Amino acid sequence: MNTRKERISILGLGAMGRALASALLEAGAEVTVWNRTSGKAGEFVARGAREAPSVEEAIGAGDLTVACLLDDASVRETLAPATRHLAGGTLVNLTSGSARQARELAGWLDGYGVRFLAGGIMAVPATIGTEGAFILYSGARDVFDRAAPVLAPIGRPRWVGEDPGGAALYDMAALSGMYGMSAGADHAVALVHAEGGDVETFRREVLQPWMEQMLPIMVAGADVAESVPEEYNPAMQATGLENILSASGEAGVPEDLAGHLRASLWRMRRAVG
Amino acid sequence: MNTRKERISILGLGAMGRALASALLEAGAEVTVWNRTSGKAGEFVARGAREAPSVEEAIGAGDLTVACLLDDASVRETLAPATRHLAGGTLVNLTSGSARQARELAGWLDGYGVRFLAGGIMAVPATIGTEGAFILYSGARDVFDRAAPVLAPIGRPRWVGEDPGGAALYDMAALSGMYGMSAGADHAVALVHAEGGDVETFRREVLQPWMEQMLPIMVAGADVAESVPEEYNPAMQATGLENILSASGEAGVPEDLAGHLRASLWRMRRAVG
Ligand SMILES: NC(=O)c1ccc[n+]([C@@H]2O[C@H](COP(=O)([O-])OP(=O)(O)OC[C@H]3O[C@@H](n4cnc5c(N)ncnc54)[C@H](OP(=O)(O)O)[C@@H]3O)[C@@H](O)[C@H]2O)c1
Ligand SMILES: NC(=O)c1ccc[n+]([C@@H]2O[C@H](COP(=O)([O-])OP(=O)(O)OC[C@H]3O[C@@H](n4cnc5c(N)ncnc54)[C@H](OP(=O)(O)O)[C@@H]3O)[C@@H](O)[C@H]2O)c1
Repeated sequence: MNTRKERISILGLGAMGRALASALLEAGAEVTVWNRTSGKAGEFVARGAREAPSVEEAIGAGDLTVACLLDDASVRETLAPATRHLAGGTLVNLTSGSARQARELAGWLDGYGVRFLAGGIMAVPATIGTEGAFILYSGARDVFDRAAPVLAPIGRPRWVGEDPGGAALYDMAALSGMYGMSAGADHAVALVHAEGGDVETFRREVLQPWMEQMLPIMVAGADVAESVPEEYNPAMQATGLENILSASGEAGVPEDLAGHLRASLWRMRRAVG
Repeated sequence: MNTRKERISILGLGAMGRALASALLEAGAEVTVWNRTSGKAGEFVARGAREAPSVEEAIGAGDLTVACLLDDASVRETLAPATRHLAGGTLVNLTSGSARQARELAGWLDGYGVRFLAGGIMAVPATIGTEGAFILYSGARDVFDRAAPVLAPIGRPRWVGEDPGGAALYDMAALSGMYGMSAGADHAVALVHAEGGDVETFRREVLQPWMEQMLPIMVAGADVAESVPEEYNPAMQATGLENILSASGEAGVPEDLAGHLRASLWRMRRAVG
């Protein structure tokens, strides 16, 4: 293993699979790519990758096979005819899914003697290989220890435990956090737009620095549904939330956009009791 | 004005008024404080502030009066008996409220010859006077130019226009953004907790760095309700959102906590058409 480059096979050349292939080629790995429909490999072949004509050949060409497909069903469908080729090898699944799906996939592959890691990509294609990117992995520690240095070029590897569902749980929860940020930012921009404010100035000089300032406070303060830290003054926050909701209504912002405010209001009212 | 310290009067010693008084005293300003109920000024008197026994005397003691009270109604109630003393002076209202309330207050005070700035505090008490803190002001530019250096110790002053409602609009919209971040983080933590994950590790090593990485992307991508950038792949995001919602339901996370997911789902479905 020390005398030659790592051989990595990538199943899936969607937006994310392409970003993975690019970062691994950039790092000097020996990359084989496969995609269900053809015509997506050209750029990578030009950069030294091999294109495999079948899943079986892709798996055979790698020390490590990485799957990055649409969803759990597409992973099952893609791997089912090739389980024989996976036996004794290592599969890292970087396709998003639920904890239960990851556990079931682990069980299924275990039956074929496949070493398996379930991953969760904490990046978007544009941030793959950048400083902020990190990848959650769960599964056997020794499988992780072997795969981590090979896959480090795509994002900082972080093992979260033996339970194959762990990476998916944290991935899904973190995504939910991101959607909150997104829903809040969308609603903020829609409100400023509806009231004729300067959206670009607001976004750059108000929303961005304010969210940056508040992020660590909101993450540290996030708690299980049953409690709200007292210093948050839930009664006052409930009033503030009601004010934003009615101002949004008056401005004609679509009601469905304000779900994050109603969720926060629900918590504050519970805390007031 | 050059030969003596600025004299600032603060109406209201709640959590925020206290933070303002503290930062201004720290910066060497001559501070007079007033609060509706007594017993809150001791700490500041010990640090050199004067305590005014009435609103009228507080206003008379300052070159600039800052109001930081519960809400618009409490500002009206507090100022009504003292409008005569405000005539010719400057009032900066740092009490949160709506754009309409700010415009109406400006009109009312204008009738008494008061120079008025409407403000929005983009900080919490703990971050007042720190690098990230900034204060939005709207109203006449010359009033801002005079007040800005005096109030700089509480947070970077930022003028957003002549319309007295401007600061409140941006303040309220930015708060909505923050509540989204908060709703998302709350839901994320509740989901990890419900599934028996390690909440502290998740918060520190997954949620915080992930939200930091995504913040600029979410703010840049936030748009008016009618559109979602195409590279977001709204169909795939809608599927992802449905998966998180069903995983949350299975985990027993309260449904009301997931309003940010439903708001995001609504947008993605609209974008798919
Ligand atoms: N994009 C992101 O920002 C992001 C971030 C984190 C995680 N992820 C995850 O990464 C995975 C891939 O995302 P993506 O953005 O690359 O999606 P994408 O651009 O839509 O690509 C989907 C890929 O899956 C393949 N595929 C779909 N159904 C298939 C099937 N039944 N059998 C075999 N292949 C199939 C597609 O092949 P064809 O070309 O033949 O259609 C394509 O290669 C997803 O699980 C996603 O949640 C994405
Ligand atoms: N705390 C924050 O994180 C934060 C952040 C940004 C902006 N703000 C805004 O800052 C303002 C003050 O917030 P806070 O956190 O200081 O609130 P707080 O701790 O609840 O204090 C409220 C203040 O308002 C006074 N007050 C209430 N009703 C009154 C009335 N009818 N007449 C006269 N005074 C009255 C209270 O006086 P008593 O002591 O006599 O009750 C107290 O001084 C609010 O508009 C808030 O939205 C707060």
